[in-house]
Amino acid sequence: MTDTALAETVDIAALMDEMGRRARTAATALADASTNAKNAALDAMAAAIDAARTDILAANEKDIALARERGRPEAFIDRLTLNDARIDAIIDSLGVIRDLPDPVGSVIDEWQRPNGLRIARVRVPLGVIGIIYEARPNVTADAGALCMKSGNAVILRGGSDSIESSAVLVRCLRQGLQEAGLPEDVIQMVPVADRAAVGEMLKGLSGNIDIIVPRGGKSLVARVQEEARVPVFAHLEGLCHTYIDADADVEKAVNITLNAKMRRPGICGATETALVDAAGAERLLKPVVEALLEAGCEVRGDAQVQAVDERVKPATEEDWRTEYLAPVISMKVVNGVEEAIAHIRRYGSQHTDAIITENDETAEKFLKEVDSAIVMRNASTQFADGGEFGFGAEIGIATGRIHARGPVGLEQLTTFKYQVRGNGQTRPA
Amino acid sequence: MTDTALAETVDIAALMDEMGRRARTAATALADASTNAKNAALDAMAAAIDAARTDILAANEKDIALARERGRPEAFIDRLTLNDARIDAIIDSLGVIRDLPDPVGSVIDEWQRPNGLRIARVRVPLGVIGIIYEARPNVTADAGALCMKSGNAVILRGGSDSIESSAVLVRCLRQGLQEAGLPEDVIQMVPVADRAAVGEMLKGLSGNIDIIVPRGGKSLVARVQEEARVPVFAHLEGLCHTYIDADADVEKAVNITLNAKMRRPGICGATETALVDAAGAERLLKPVVEALLEAGCEVRGDAQVQAVDERVKPATEEDWRTEYLAPVISMKVVNGVEEAIAHIRRYGSQHTDAIITENDETAEKFLKEVDSAIVMRNASTQFADGGEFGFGAEIGIATGRIHARGPVGLEQLTTFKYQVRGNGQTRPA
Repeated sequence: MTDTALAETVDIAALMDEMGRRARTAATALADASTNAKNAALDAMAAAIDAARTDILAANEKDIALARERGRPEAFIDRLTLNDARIDAIIDSLGVIRDLPDPVGSVIDEWQRPNGLRIARVRVPLGVIGIIYEARPNVTADAGALCMKSGNAVILRGGSDSIESSAVLVRCLRQGLQEAGLPEDVIQMVPVADRAAVGEMLKGLSGNIDIIVPRGGKSLVARVQEEARVPVFAHLEGLCHTYIDADADVEKAVNITLNAKMRRPGICGATETALVDAAGAERLLKPVVEALLEAGCEVRGDAQVQAVDERVKPATEEDWRTEYLAPVISMKVVNGVEEAIAHIRRYGSQHTDAIITENDETAEKFLKEVDSAIVMRNASTQFADGGEFGFGAEIGIATGRIHARGPVGLEQLTTFKYQVRGNGQTRPA
Repeated sequence: MTDTALAETVDIAALMDEMGRRARTAATALADASTNAKNAALDAMAAAIDAARTDILAANEKDIALARERGRPEAFIDRLTLNDARIDAIIDSLGVIRDLPDPVGSVIDEWQRPNGLRIARVRVPLGVIGIIYEARPNVTADAGALCMKSGNAVILRGGSDSIESSAVLVRCLRQGLQEAGLPEDVIQMVPVADRAAVGEMLKGLSGNIDIIVPRGGKSLVARVQEEARVPVFAHLEGLCHTYIDADADVEKAVNITLNAKMRRPGICGATETALVDAAGAERLLKPVVEALLEAGCEVRGDAQVQAVDERVKPATEEDWRTEYLAPVISMKVVNGVEEAIAHIRRYGSQHTDAIITENDETAEKFLKEVDSAIVMRNASTQFADGGEFGFGAEIGIATGRIHARGPVGLEQLTTFKYQVRGNGQTRPA
């Protein structure tokens, strides 16, 4: 029975439960698959996608037409749109993932006890991962490939707007698995747009989902936090700060702040608030504000920032809490690193925060005391990215504190177990 | 206002919320405390407990009297009972924790990117830990000390039966913190027996609890799984297996199985089911069954096991699913390691499972394919313990897959952050 036929004949709960069971079976088989088999599957997936360009583009046209009917904004349609160059990028990304080292089976730590027991801590897959994301077809391929390479089965639930494009891509991914002799059900896509499917995933499919990775806006994250009965790699938001210390180099302050905000204002690692040390404000504030304004950034500031340039708009309390994801920045003058840290603690989202300073002591204080997944000195917050960290690829950035924090790459998609090797040891009373 | 006065004047939700705020403030201060200060606090806690023996024993007598009134079983009363030797053990345990290396600030990993960015992955505390446990006063001291040494604040919610004993112990722990110049609110105890307090903790106290560690029976764990809105280090149950392979040494098989079941039948690492390879049953089954029966263990087996000795009782399907925590074992003959692994996959709790064999290939297959927190070869499952692993002390064993798996020691009570050190890097478009 095809997935589509299945969707027509059974209710959502039964459909999802069946997907969970299939995923568990596939995960169990995949956990012991060789790196070669997984890499062969990635190559076959890339070839299948290359061969299916016509189908992919036709399906994508249907998605786009429906999205236009639904009145989606242009930025949304742009993220949804595929073309030959974007299909090339998807294929390239599969090659990158193939070339990454396989984390499964690697020994994290090893030691021997006085009684002779040898203990090893070894990486193993998480199991079954549920990914709930918005209408970006490239995520379908990336997430599927990353989960598979790290030994996990995955249930993908993409936005309904990309359902046709994603279905063709998933067909190609499953074809790749089959050609490599791996179970197709390692990668499954929820074949219906019904929101009830998300609810079932959040309940954990009778123990057949080990972790949920939500990739979406605040309403999705809020729903996940309320309903999830399984662990979640949460991405709350990226309310990132750049603090310009009195001991900052002015050129670094200008270049880094500009890049941190304006390189791509819409990514989660973009700086939303710049804090400037009062003791350095006279020297540092004006060049930074002018550079941002010249680059087309709207600046909202406190009284001191407003005094620098008449184009600066007043910032309200709400601005310190806002992730603009747009060419807008809030700016505030603070009394030194202590007040900067306090502001970040109060308003930040524990994603990425940076200090610009030439003073080692101040820098180390900031790096130690700011409790975010990523803390930086003299670098752009836009480096908060798995690729930039050397992870090769990522499925997202986690802002929670448990298991994965920061970029979620292959290694973060695994867990571990202890292997204990003895020669007859019994535990004394 | 004392905690007791507080409990009388406000409702549970407000009380718990206030505890959460205090914990967060204390955790923030403690995160940067020196190892010396934390160790000084542990010494002062030990001294305070030593000085308060009379108060502790008097409080404990009240608890015991009430527990007897409530008709609690003797085993329960025994776990609740303190005496001078048990107070000595609590004091010794604080000394052990003081001597353990401080995980906070240690560098897990460090690398440099081609653009010159230096990235370090550094251990940091989890934050605020909520511990929900039963009436064992020693857990109060152990859990408080472990959380504090790993840089975390803790909210303890012990069983109502030990509330008087725990209150005096917590007073001593807080005195120790104060004497070392650390915030008392690093260790707080819920001062009321109301079960609603647990509900508030599971809701996360407005973001002021980072993780819940339940230590208790199935009904507590079920409640936690249903209600928790924050991550949980779950301990489902310890349905541990020992598989005796055809290539097992008979002496090891007998000694290990006997120890795995009977050393302490009530701990979570005790073996509940022994599986015996059909190909070795003639040689191995009888000696193992006889040894267990001679040691006073009730044996429940399938037909082949029953045929060995008339004292063996029949096992039902329910037996394969039962964590006896008692001198009872279920036994089954299986067709080789494949069937043993399938049985463990179906009935196990992913806690600890062992194989007894002299065959390296079979052993490695078992260690690789059994997906439990701890897998063992030729050793007793009763070694599933933080102390035996060399962790020094543990707060419990986690059977979940995320973050902590197996013994939860100091290191598992931390998370990490990335510190990125640059010299002006901006991210290219």
